[in-house]
Amino acid sequence: MRMSQAFLPTLREEPKEAEVASHLLLLRAGMIRKLAAGVYSILPLGKRVLRKIETIIREEMDRTGAHELYLPAVQPAELWEESGRWAKYGKELLRFQDRHEHWFCFGPTHEEVITDLVRREIRSYRDLPQCFYQIQVKFRDEVRPRFGLIRGREFIMKDAYSFDRDEAGAEESYRKMVRAYERSFTRMNLDFRVVQAEAGLIGGNFSHEFMALAATGEDLIIVCDHCGYSASQERAEVGKSETPASGGEKALERVATPGKKTVEEVCQFLGAEPRDLIKTLIVQVQGQPLAILIRGDLEFNPNKLKRHLRAEAVELADAETIERVTKAPVGFAGPVGISLKTLADHSIRGISRGVTGANAADFHLINVKIGRDFPDPEYGDFRLARGGDACSQCGKTMREIRGLELGHSFKLGVKYSQAMRATYLDPQGKETLIVMGCYGIGVTRAMAAVVEQHHDQDGIIFPISVAPYQVIVVPVELADSQVREKSEEIYEKLTEAGWEILYDDRAERAGAKFKDADLLGIPFRITVGKRNLANGRVEIKRRGEKAVQLEPTETVCARIQELISAARGTDPAGPGS
Amino acid sequence: MRMSQAFLPTLREEPKEAEVASHLLLLRAGMIRKLAAGVYSILPLGKRVLRKIETIIREEMDRTGAHELYLPAVQPAELWEESGRWAKYGKELLRFQDRHEHWFCFGPTHEEVITDLVRREIRSYRDLPQCFYQIQVKFRDEVRPRFGLIRGREFIMKDAYSFDRDEAGAEESYRKMVRAYERSFTRMNLDFRVVQAEAGLIGGNFSHEFMALAATGEDLIIVCDHCGYSASQERAEVGKSETPASGGEKALERVATPGKKTVEEVCQFLGAEPRDLIKTLIVQVQGQPLAILIRGDLEFNPNKLKRHLRAEAVELADAETIERVTKAPVGFAGPVGISLKTLADHSIRGISRGVTGANAADFHLINVKIGRDFPDPEYGDFRLARGGDACSQCGKTMREIRGLELGHSFKLGVKYSQAMRATYLDPQGKETLIVMGCYGIGVTRAMAAVVEQHHDQDGIIFPISVAPYQVIVVPVELADSQVREKSEEIYEKLTEAGWEILYDDRAERAGAKFKDADLLGIPFRITVGKRNLANGRVEIKRRGEKAVQLEPTETVCARIQELISAARGTDPAGPGS
Repeated sequence: MRMSQAFLPTLREEPKEAEVASHLLLLRAGMIRKLAAGVYSILPLGKRVLRKIETIIREEMDRTGAHELYLPAVQPAELWEESGRWAKYGKELLRFQDRHEHWFCFGPTHEEVITDLVRREIRSYRDLPQCFYQIQVKFRDEVRPRFGLIRGREFIMKDAYSFDRDEAGAEESYRKMVRAYERSFTRMNLDFRVVQAEAGLIGGNFSHEFMALAATGEDLIIVCDHCGYSASQERAEVGKSETPASGGEKALERVATPGKKTVEEVCQFLGAEPRDLIKTLIVQVQGQPLAILIRGDLEFNPNKLKRHLRAEAVELADAETIERVTKAPVGFAGPVGISLKTLADHSIRGISRGVTGANAADFHLINVKIGRDFPDPEYGDFRLARGGDACSQCGKTMREIRGLELGHSFKLGVKYSQAMRATYLDPQGKETLIVMGCYGIGVTRAMAAVVEQHHDQDGIIFPISVAPYQVIVVPVELADSQVREKSEEIYEKLTEAGWEILYDDRAERAGAKFKDADLLGIPFRITVGKRNLANGRVEIKRRGEKAVQLEPTETVCARIQELISAARGTDPAGPGS
Repeated sequence: MRMSQAFLPTLREEPKEAEVASHLLLLRAGMIRKLAAGVYSILPLGKRVLRKIETIIREEMDRTGAHELYLPAVQPAELWEESGRWAKYGKELLRFQDRHEHWFCFGPTHEEVITDLVRREIRSYRDLPQCFYQIQVKFRDEVRPRFGLIRGREFIMKDAYSFDRDEAGAEESYRKMVRAYERSFTRMNLDFRVVQAEAGLIGGNFSHEFMALAATGEDLIIVCDHCGYSASQERAEVGKSETPASGGEKALERVATPGKKTVEEVCQFLGAEPRDLIKTLIVQVQGQPLAILIRGDLEFNPNKLKRHLRAEAVELADAETIERVTKAPVGFAGPVGISLKTLADHSIRGISRGVTGANAADFHLINVKIGRDFPDPEYGDFRLARGGDACSQCGKTMREIRGLELGHSFKLGVKYSQAMRATYLDPQGKETLIVMGCYGIGVTRAMAAVVEQHHDQDGIIFPISVAPYQVIVVPVELADSQVREKSEEIYEKLTEAGWEILYDDRAERAGAKFKDADLLGIPFRITVGKRNLANGRVEIKRRGEKAVQLEPTETVCARIQELISAARGTDPAGPGS
């Protein structure tokens, strides 16, 4: 591609809206432009990168035997009502009416549509297993879209759905897909980790996230370097670590704490530490209020309570409910004398001189002892994990790292096939529920993740497997006929050989050309300059490396092809790319 | 692909909803399924065909130097307000509000978005010309979606937009794109015609439609076999052919026609022919009523009046207006004594004993002579063309054919660049409007058109260039180990060689397998049967032909590759496919 004819609107200045490197560099390199909040146009150079990423994913999906198809973006409300998600999905689901006033949504995901297709077309155990995928535009009406392609509202996603006869088959399909994801991200040169995750609105039995490691990542991952356990913060389990008894017992005492409601206020007023507090939260589970006790310095994780109780939803109670059940304003709840079912996080075990609300306005209790002042509650793991917590598997200390979610896999079980009656006849002619899995990759987000992990202060450093072009040819003095002719020759020859070559034939200063070449992140630069050319030489430089090689003009094309092939070898490019 | 593992839900029965061959066969061959009115899932086999069509289009677009990009499906209302189309587009535009109650639409086309991008990024004449394209999902909320993929609401479209410095450049871009379209449709083996067309809601100076010829086509094309003129019915011009005077003159007479309002009623009552009637229509043009006269047997074409008057819109007047200006109920308007600006189609020239409304309830006039009874009106071509009309170019008789719109090109001029201020600085530093063109191909519709033109009573007959697989291998007796082994060997060998092979390894009767092979339309069938195999032979059959060739097992793979290559030669497959 001749740059004089290309559309490469690079920016010299840093766009103010960009908070992370990928957003900044994709804008500056002229690969994306914002159309509306969380809605981006992908410009030609960006589209080339996207197509390479799509090709890698497509090849790895095809390798698993999954079939590509295309499911509509516009989905009728009826199907979402059948699965129960029309009510549950909230404002993230973009809903609208057509001209006949029928309700539809812009698909944020396709479980309903594919389950509807499968229940109509699959009859027999002979038709299973099946796995389908598509690469398609999705919309999720995020409250706060940000970071460019990382948290957009409209985005390209690869979604796949597996259908099996039984649990064992579904687990094999799940494993296959996880391996395909690992291969795909490896081929994109992404540094990633597979972690246990919450299933959220998609639902199902278990779930993994594929996290690109990135300091600016929005997600916190809790990892144990000792045993290898890793999970999203939402999902991470914590080992039982008993809180050391806070000194000897003392008699329970009721103290006035006028207007002191938060952990901080109470601690400051009483001269206590947050870890001495037994924080009491009132939650609603299927209409029933419950009390949850947790140490004052920790955060409650409602997902864990949900799983513990096998509940559909857990919500914090509203002020009215709290006042009704504690007979006190919000901020003074406590376990002593409360007539609610009470569950406690392991963290409060062994507290013998605890501080709690007194279930009375402006009063707290001190020297509270579990078992003495209130009955031993039902214990469980209800805290939000954090670095420093004990590993649930091996007991060693875990740490936090930041990540960017590239993909998510869900073992759905029969959640959708039950709700929507997707069944097959087994060899005995018995109607049996199909066991499902679903698997997503954020394709546009993967493009951002590549840039997030591969850049320096000058611009992007594309891995060869997803680079928009492999080589950029830069003539230093375009006016010089020998420089121009040699540059043209190299460009034509390499293009002819099937490589993707960018040729900077613009009448710009060499400095500006080098700056653009660095910004665009093309893996190899061939610089054709008057001085070197007089000695029959051109320069080869690898983006991201300082060293420059001088190469005889006769051998430069052969040499660069060797270098590209070697780069494909070191970058684990995999077959077909 | 082993058919035992494929997802090919073929249907034995004819789906009732299908009215045309492509709809019927795409359903029966398991390539598409309806999700909602005008909204279809594309199943794996259909997706393969779609990808081939997309690849052909992409290659031809790239060959013109156009750059592929991706523009969002979700577009903010503001841009459509700037172009003026938010108000004009009507109910076909699917509109919705996001969670913040901002208005958006699901893009039916992308003129606004691309013009917005270009006006921000293009500054100088050096940045022009440019041409961009994308292959992307669109939505148009059709009143009556039908014929499967032919008139859907959600569909895949290739849209392209050209930006030039001046009219001459824009015309060159237009010609380039027309040639690329012709090559694309030729490579898909489509029998098509390029015809002059109306620009409709897209607007601009001139426009062409690319029509696949099809007896079931929704569009009427008017062609002149003598000079080659062809245009859509909406657009087709008609030569001036004077109506022979209907006998000698007679005195104007007023006759009672109680309750006779339509052409048919009046003719029957008065014993006249429709071609004796001067039909008088009252239309509104920018708030002004006008009278349009046309022969009773012809239809009025408002597009022609619009162009004649350079008006934004022409609408038939409502009953109230008609009563006000004719002082009679609807059905009795006439040119005699009316005080409105009057225009007439050439077809009424020379009528000397015409019948018209009397501008009075239940009365008509007979023996009306133009020039004597009312002033000679302004003449023009205002009729809807039809077969048998005279050609506007050569005067010979034209005929009607039916077509299916595959693509549409528009020379937009400065319609959008003026409304949205998309300008560049010319070499003298003067701010100048960019001259635009836009070009669309209905990608999913092209798939339907291929089937519409290539099928017989047994199923689809895919051209090799877009066939989902080139060869289907059918073992007649799967239980026979020699038959099975030879079939597997051929399947593996051809797959290894890079061809796309379907292998019918299902435990079905041979008859059912042959039926499916015919239905799916795979160009070549290799049949492996016990009897022929005993003689070291297998059968090769081309879909759509009766003849069967016997080929030695040793040479069958070489032979089939020759046949595929030959088919690609006769089918104008073009480069790269």
